[in-house]
Amino acid sequence: MKNKVIKLALIGFGNVGRALAKLLVRKKKWLGKRGLDLSVTYVISRKGGVYDLEGIDLDNLVSFVSTGQRLSEYSHGGTPDLSFDLMIKRGDFDTLFEMSPTDTETGDPARYHITSALERGKNVITANKGPILLKYAELKELADSKGVFLGIGCTTGGSLPSITAGIYDLAGAEILSIEGILNGTTNYILNLMENEGLSYENALKATQDTGLAESDPSKDVGGWDTATKLIILSNALMNSDLSLDDIQVKGIQGITPKDIQDAAKKGKRYKLIGKAEKIKGTVKASVTLQTIGSDNFLFGIEGSGKAVLYQTDIFGELLVASSASGPGYAAASLLRDLINNVK
Amino acid sequence: MKNKVIKLALIGFGNVGRALAKLLVRKKKWLGKRGLDLSVTYVISRKGGVYDLEGIDLDNLVSFVSTGQRLSEYSHGGTPDLSFDLMIKRGDFDTLFEMSPTDTETGDPARYHITSALERGKNVITANKGPILLKYAELKELADSKGVFLGIGCTTGGSLPSITAGIYDLAGAEILSIEGILNGTTNYILNLMENEGLSYENALKATQDTGLAESDPSKDVGGWDTATKLIILSNALMNSDLSLDDIQVKGIQGITPKDIQDAAKKGKRYKLIGKAEKIKGTVKASVTLQTIGSDNFLFGIEGSGKAVLYQTDIFGELLVASSASGPGYAAASLLRDLINNVK
Repeated sequence: MKNKVIKLALIGFGNVGRALAKLLVRKKKWLGKRGLDLSVTYVISRKGGVYDLEGIDLDNLVSFVSTGQRLSEYSHGGTPDLSFDLMIKRGDFDTLFEMSPTDTETGDPARYHITSALERGKNVITANKGPILLKYAELKELADSKGVFLGIGCTTGGSLPSITAGIYDLAGAEILSIEGILNGTTNYILNLMENEGLSYENALKATQDTGLAESDPSKDVGGWDTATKLIILSNALMNSDLSLDDIQVKGIQGITPKDIQDAAKKGKRYKLIGKAEKIKGTVKASVTLQTIGSDNFLFGIEGSGKAVLYQTDIFGELLVASSASGPGYAAASLLRDLINNVK
Repeated sequence: MKNKVIKLALIGFGNVGRALAKLLVRKKKWLGKRGLDLSVTYVISRKGGVYDLEGIDLDNLVSFVSTGQRLSEYSHGGTPDLSFDLMIKRGDFDTLFEMSPTDTETGDPARYHITSALERGKNVITANKGPILLKYAELKELADSKGVFLGIGCTTGGSLPSITAGIYDLAGAEILSIEGILNGTTNYILNLMENEGLSYENALKATQDTGLAESDPSKDVGGWDTATKLIILSNALMNSDLSLDDIQVKGIQGITPKDIQDAAKKGKRYKLIGKAEKIKGTVKASVTLQTIGSDNFLFGIEGSGKAVLYQTDIFGELLVASSASGPGYAAASLLRDLINNVK
């Protein structure tokens, strides 16, 4: 039987885009054996891009841009005139991977990219939290009306299959609550404070030194990254219509080693928990720093691990947990969405 | 848009079959809203069955058999002459739910039921470990050759989405190892010994009193149930060809409260772990009672909980854990396989 060839377009070629390109090379043979031939016809950045209908040599291209050169300078199909709009007009691809920089205020340009591709009848898989946080219902409806799919698994924790579990592991269930440790950076900081007795400031600095926390850590430590992922999960899996304005958000700043030691004496741990819960048909959500005991599955999530605990009507509770994060895992998550949706 | 109507045949109407019938009634409206109309046309037991091409009233039928009456005596379509073979010959159904009693020696009669239905071009979803333990590769190949599906999620831990996670949450990955607490009964016994200081004999008795352990507990405590589920997972997800003869199996008998206390002093817990691991391309599997520390995700699985930890090439490690078991959860798992495969 001849394999199905799927033509892919990549927009955004930063860390995640390059990791995806490398993953597609690495998995080419493996996917081929399973009936899937993936061919990348476009790679687009803000300043031009690369086009090759026969399939771009991704190994070559990643090496090329790693030397600091631009996509538009690439000798096999690179051109400064190649824009997103031109690609959409031509339409000679099946699935768009949207990996441009995230903006959680307007969602653009990712929102524009996703909308344009869906309207053109193309599948979209995105790593971009912004537009999914702001406009999931609208985008999903557009995808459904065009008979294409919108993959968002990467937006809620990289390799953690939080969306995938909600769709497939819990197929048939009503999800009653979603409770998660959704931000690895804050979990890592809390663990350092617990295990090594560090102050909050020193634990944050140590986490920044590992590269896990950003130089401006406010989105992580303030609970906003957790809130963003929680809202996406809740809107996608519990059919809610929440925005960041609807949700109480408390971060981990201000916690002291004494707080943590006092909790430990009672057999408890501080965790930054995002929770969305159906109460009388309405979903209420919050992000809070709280103590939990060992009877909660989330108690055992250590280091930079992430986990989601679902309460459901017919499966009881389900935990999914993963300790992996980084661009390679984000890329794996994007590929997962593709495979699950073309099966 | 008109809903897709899927005609179901149930064979076996014990605890799991009745739980499935009740679940189908409970979820009828919910599934209808999502485009799925499920209609049960056959319910078959060893002595006759019920047939109604318009769809059997399952609420009524469950009430009827709950009073101790036979399927064949049911006034709306019950007949002693209705056999599995007759149903296969007629073929007026789409998907068979195979829920007859399990036999792990020969796999029959379930193996015969599954093979016959697949050969007739029908989808099969089974709760039956026997034939899947013995003949998974052969049955899967038959299903693929007929273009139908074989759902086996229920055979490896009820609500625990161990197979589902391997297929969907880890889509695109090579699974390098599968490590799990796959038997809730033994985990419950070990927990009782740890938390209440009971001897093995007393903990077993207490577990039997709750109904969680059977009067002949040898399959659970001897590690054979764990081994069976591990082999199914490994054969289905790691492409191995293992049988019970290929695997070292050690149970929990003989463990003393002192063993458990000594481990606890070192911050460790005894767990009955089934592990299958790819070593130089070959899968090696074993079931062993071992101590693990809190750095292992499985450490936190308490009570009658079950969990599987996957190591993979592109997602790092993934844990799925669930604490639910019983016929209702087995039924939910069967329904999950149906929904995921008809999407």
